[in-house]
Amino acid sequence: RLPIKETVEIRFGKLDKEFKIRIEPLHVEFKTGKERNLLDAFLTHGIEIESICGGNGICGKCIIRVERGQTSLPTEIERKILGKRLEKKYRLACQTYPLSDLVITIPLSSMRKRGKILEWGIMSEVDINPEVKCRYVELQRPTLEDQRPDEDRILDGLSLKTIDYQFLTQLSKRIRSMSWKGFFIYRDEELLGVEEEKRIYGVAVDIGTTTIVAYLVDLITGNIVKVKSDYNPQISFGEDVISRIEFSLKEKGLLKLHETLIDGINQLIQKLCKEEGITPDRIYQINCAGNTVMLSTLLRTPIEFIGKTPFIPPFTKSKEVKSRELKVSINRAGYVYTLPSVSGYIGGDVIGDILTANVINEREYFFLIDIGTNGELVLGNSERILSVSCAAGPALEGMGIKYGMRGTVGAIERVYVDPYSWKPYYRVIGGVKARGICGSGLIDAVAGMYVAGIINGGGRLIEKGYNIKEVEGERMYVIAHKEETDMGEEIGIIQRDVRNVQLAKAAFYAGYKILIESMGVKPEDIKKIYIAGAFGNYISASSAVLIGLLPDLPNAKVISIGNGAGMGACRTLISIKEKELAEEIADKIEYIELSSEKKFYKEFVKATQFPHENLEEFPRVKKVLETKNISILEKY
Amino acid sequence: RLPIKETVEIRFGKLDKEFKIRIEPLHVEFKTGKERNLLDAFLTHGIEIESICGGNGICGKCIIRVERGQTSLPTEIERKILGKRLEKKYRLACQTYPLSDLVITIPLSSMRKRGKILEWGIMSEVDINPEVKCRYVELQRPTLEDQRPDEDRILDGLSLKTIDYQFLTQLSKRIRSMSWKGFFIYRDEELLGVEEEKRIYGVAVDIGTTTIVAYLVDLITGNIVKVKSDYNPQISFGEDVISRIEFSLKEKGLLKLHETLIDGINQLIQKLCKEEGITPDRIYQINCAGNTVMLSTLLRTPIEFIGKTPFIPPFTKSKEVKSRELKVSINRAGYVYTLPSVSGYIGGDVIGDILTANVINEREYFFLIDIGTNGELVLGNSERILSVSCAAGPALEGMGIKYGMRGTVGAIERVYVDPYSWKPYYRVIGGVKARGICGSGLIDAVAGMYVAGIINGGGRLIEKGYNIKEVEGERMYVIAHKEETDMGEEIGIIQRDVRNVQLAKAAFYAGYKILIESMGVKPEDIKKIYIAGAFGNYISASSAVLIGLLPDLPNAKVISIGNGAGMGACRTLISIKEKELAEEIADKIEYIELSSEKKFYKEFVKATQFPHENLEEFPRVKKVLETKNISILEKY
Ligand code: FES
Ligand code: FES
Repeated sequence: RLPIKETVEIRFGKLDKEFKIRIEPLHVEFKTGKERNLLDAFLTHGIEIESICGGNGICGKCIIRVERGQTSLPTEIERKILGKRLEKKYRLACQTYPLSDLVITIPLSSMRKRGKILEWGIMSEVDINPEVKCRYVELQRPTLEDQRPDEDRILDGLSLKTIDYQFLTQLSKRIRSMSWKGFFIYRDEELLGVEEEKRIYGVAVDIGTTTIVAYLVDLITGNIVKVKSDYNPQISFGEDVISRIEFSLKEKGLLKLHETLIDGINQLIQKLCKEEGITPDRIYQINCAGNTVMLSTLLRTPIEFIGKTPFIPPFTKSKEVKSRELKVSINRAGYVYTLPSVSGYIGGDVIGDILTANVINEREYFFLIDIGTNGELVLGNSERILSVSCAAGPALEGMGIKYGMRGTVGAIERVYVDPYSWKPYYRVIGGVKARGICGSGLIDAVAGMYVAGIINGGGRLIEKGYNIKEVEGERMYVIAHKEETDMGEEIGIIQRDVRNVQLAKAAFYAGYKILIESMGVKPEDIKKIYIAGAFGNYISASSAVLIGLLPDLPNAKVISIGNGAGMGACRTLISIKEKELAEEIADKIEYIELSSEKKFYKEFVKATQFPHENLEEFPRVKKVLETKNISILEKY
Repeated sequence: RLPIKETVEIRFGKLDKEFKIRIEPLHVEFKTGKERNLLDAFLTHGIEIESICGGNGICGKCIIRVERGQTSLPTEIERKILGKRLEKKYRLACQTYPLSDLVITIPLSSMRKRGKILEWGIMSEVDINPEVKCRYVELQRPTLEDQRPDEDRILDGLSLKTIDYQFLTQLSKRIRSMSWKGFFIYRDEELLGVEEEKRIYGVAVDIGTTTIVAYLVDLITGNIVKVKSDYNPQISFGEDVISRIEFSLKEKGLLKLHETLIDGINQLIQKLCKEEGITPDRIYQINCAGNTVMLSTLLRTPIEFIGKTPFIPPFTKSKEVKSRELKVSINRAGYVYTLPSVSGYIGGDVIGDILTANVINEREYFFLIDIGTNGELVLGNSERILSVSCAAGPALEGMGIKYGMRGTVGAIERVYVDPYSWKPYYRVIGGVKARGICGSGLIDAVAGMYVAGIINGGGRLIEKGYNIKEVEGERMYVIAHKEETDMGEEIGIIQRDVRNVQLAKAAFYAGYKILIESMGVKPEDIKKIYIAGAFGNYISASSAVLIGLLPDLPNAKVISIGNGAGMGACRTLISIKEKELAEEIADKIEYIELSSEKKFYKEFVKATQFPHENLEEFPRVKKVLETKNISILEKY
């Protein structure tokens, strides 16, 4: 179901012998020789794979799996870093040379997509049974003996019940020009259109506070055929949800938010259509996931009451509105569907995440987390699902951090601190000189500093040591030296940054504690941790566990589902069942309002420590601290 | 249910004693004395009652009924004209003087409304149970313990299922500004609005080809509270249905027809609202009756295929469209409902007529006729209903007639030909000098000429006689002499006019014959004849029988239902039951396409004679011809 299908055919000079390397799940193929390691070859061919240490076998991030074919033997470094995973055909790309044609899979965790908007996510099997359907019918022509009106003739012929009003105004001429036959497009019992060829589409949209991702879905095959993304143009009215709510209170503020968003979506639709070579009236449905505030601005319903106690959203049910009501530029008879939400802070994006994780029927407990300024946490199984939302503040996204910046070109996005030498390794998005540090880099840095002992459990930065210095009266651990940065200034983590990270991560962990206690479930019973959303996709799960942002669950498999909201929206477009499932999930999820939970504050205080006041809750972190061997957590 | 409720208090000089005269169903009261006959008194007080002969006791048109009080004794003239009807308290207004306070009813047939648009019709009992309802509810306010979204809180509180999308965008602010209580307006299971006072309205519209009549209906009381009418502004694109269809084929023709009509309706709504002192958003539904072409242009669906064989309309089912889809200026959450039709030429106006006639459950046969350029004829009972439509041409409406004109000021609208002297009496709309003759005058004239022997059964105008002359090579019977006309030219009926009337009336009668034969019903089994529509309201039923336009059914009561389409639309607005009944009627009516009936042409030829080739089909006309006493037919 992944759309990229191209064969890169770039040749380069003087290779003894060229081997064909095929990469899954990207469906990419290229040729290379035995004198070039795979990391090199990947980067040459534009395949963005993780490699913080620059191919020196230190960071252990360039993990790949060799599915078929022969390669050079594992090196000493690989044996140390990968251990038993070598048996499962895992290798470090920087240490591996091809000796034959190869088929290689790159685990999602090794894929580097940073600096771009997170478009893809996991897509497990789904029935192809879209709501919008297409059927070829030849109708009987009218005669003096059979004077049925056009409407009745067509509804009878198709066994449908109604015709969209706007389509009805076009129908009489259209059907005669097509000689009373064609591919009829309908949804439920309503006729929406008729086409001369069997080619209809839907669009799934993930409306994030920061970005919008739009997927073009072929409703005949059920395939996602194109994807386009861009920043949410509402950003010009405020970066986060709270500032959007404030803006909505201004004269015509809500209307501006609404129109700007619709405009942004229409532009993505236009691009998708242009690339696919279709007109927008071939699109008959648009399914949107997003948080409650985004879906509200999409539908132009007031968001101000979400922002103040008791935090009431205008609606949480799914909505189906004719595209023309919203001036969304698809077929005028088509629909805009918004995924259901649970509360003001558990939105349709979370429902999309759960759909994508495909867990609703599993008896074992799962824990799903979407990390951002607002974190959404879900715990449940097929019996019961609980959710909380915690306002962690924007620190983890790099805001309010001395050298913090958005995850774009120039941001330090990966940091590895050698626990013995305290020497920092880092990677910058776009490969340019560093301009700042973004959220994922921040978490890596704090985790590395903690393991190395640069900060203690209370978060206090050590007074003296390698790369420790005083800047403007604040203590700092330097990550990038002057000569490595764009502005010629050092970039590092100051004491205040660490404090901010402590407050943010404590909110998440306290939310998690409320969830497991309310559910009465033991940590060891949780079998899967799903990390959703853009931010979650880029952070290092092991760093997150090290600082106590994620719980340390030895029995749980961590699965990054990528853009779960967008994929969930795609699923509802491809299959009626998934749409029904979305409703079922929304009905089922119970929401716990943390601001009325006294226990939350107690847990919050305990969780401000690294990784936690009670180290027993983090058994593997405890081991890492003892051995300074981070690879204990690497199975994340 | 009639809206006019005023007391006219004009006083005039030197009356011995003044009596209070109350007129029903107009709800009008005035004072007059015993020295003035009632016709005079009526006209002085603006009550327009029929009086062709000017109060001379000749025409017998000024029939009234004295319900209560004492009057002068019946005159010889009254005894001759009214006969047994005197016992039923009927009197001629021009012969009657008050001797006490009186309560008088004026039969619809005696009411003169010509020159104005026909607004009123009969309104029999109807359950007050409108589709749009209003209920006062106080809702629980949201708290941290009860964070239901606004939508759910309100739907739960009202036991409803959905909220109109546009209203949802207003709801959160509105409901808080109203402190969570108010009069909620809903329809079916959908919430449409909330108001601070219990005051909501609907509008019923009769969209005629020539005129539009709009009724403001109070949906709390079920009363029609205001009515406004105007010409259909589409007239500028063509006078009749056929020319509208032709216009629709021009570039943007249909769109212009649509927009012009919507504009016309919106103007009437504006006037209604202004007079009632309300804003248009208090109106939550608009129910429209009209012929198939009118309803099609209302909804902007192509009308061209109605106009050519096999005459297929785009739709006949009733339609419910949000007002905002049509830019009809009522509440944006409100609905536009169009009554169902039967075929391209049996429209929602006919369904409205049948509703108004209130006959659908009667076991006895009724015959309903709407006379115009296209005549619609319906025959049926509770078991079965048949309908035909005949294109009679515009002759009966005065078009293609030498001195023909529309029924407005200056038109001769009533003609009485003295069967002995051949002297014509006539009445002009507006009381001005005659400018021409309109349809009802034409029918009266031809009938009178036939009874007098000025034309024979074959329609041939006699060569010589009173008022017979030759004009521009054509023989003519003069009705108004030069000095009585506006342009100083004689006005009369020429031979060709008579021929045109013969063709038109034959179409109607042939249609009637097809109906009774298809139904297998005998003429004597028909118990009621309903005459609907503006034109039908103004013609004299006895003249129509005399020329053979209407069948001569001695056992049938003739009932003029006035604006049946408009009244029918009102009924669907006042009662859900009536709306369901409209659907039931539309489902039930069978339509016979005359253009594929060979018998039709045979019947048509026979019906071109006055009154018919077979005089036995017109027993009372036969008697009139023998006795020259028209009052035999006066029970019409
Ligand atoms: S790039 Fe291979 S281990 Fe760092
Ligand atoms: S006006 Fe009374 S009979 Fe003519």
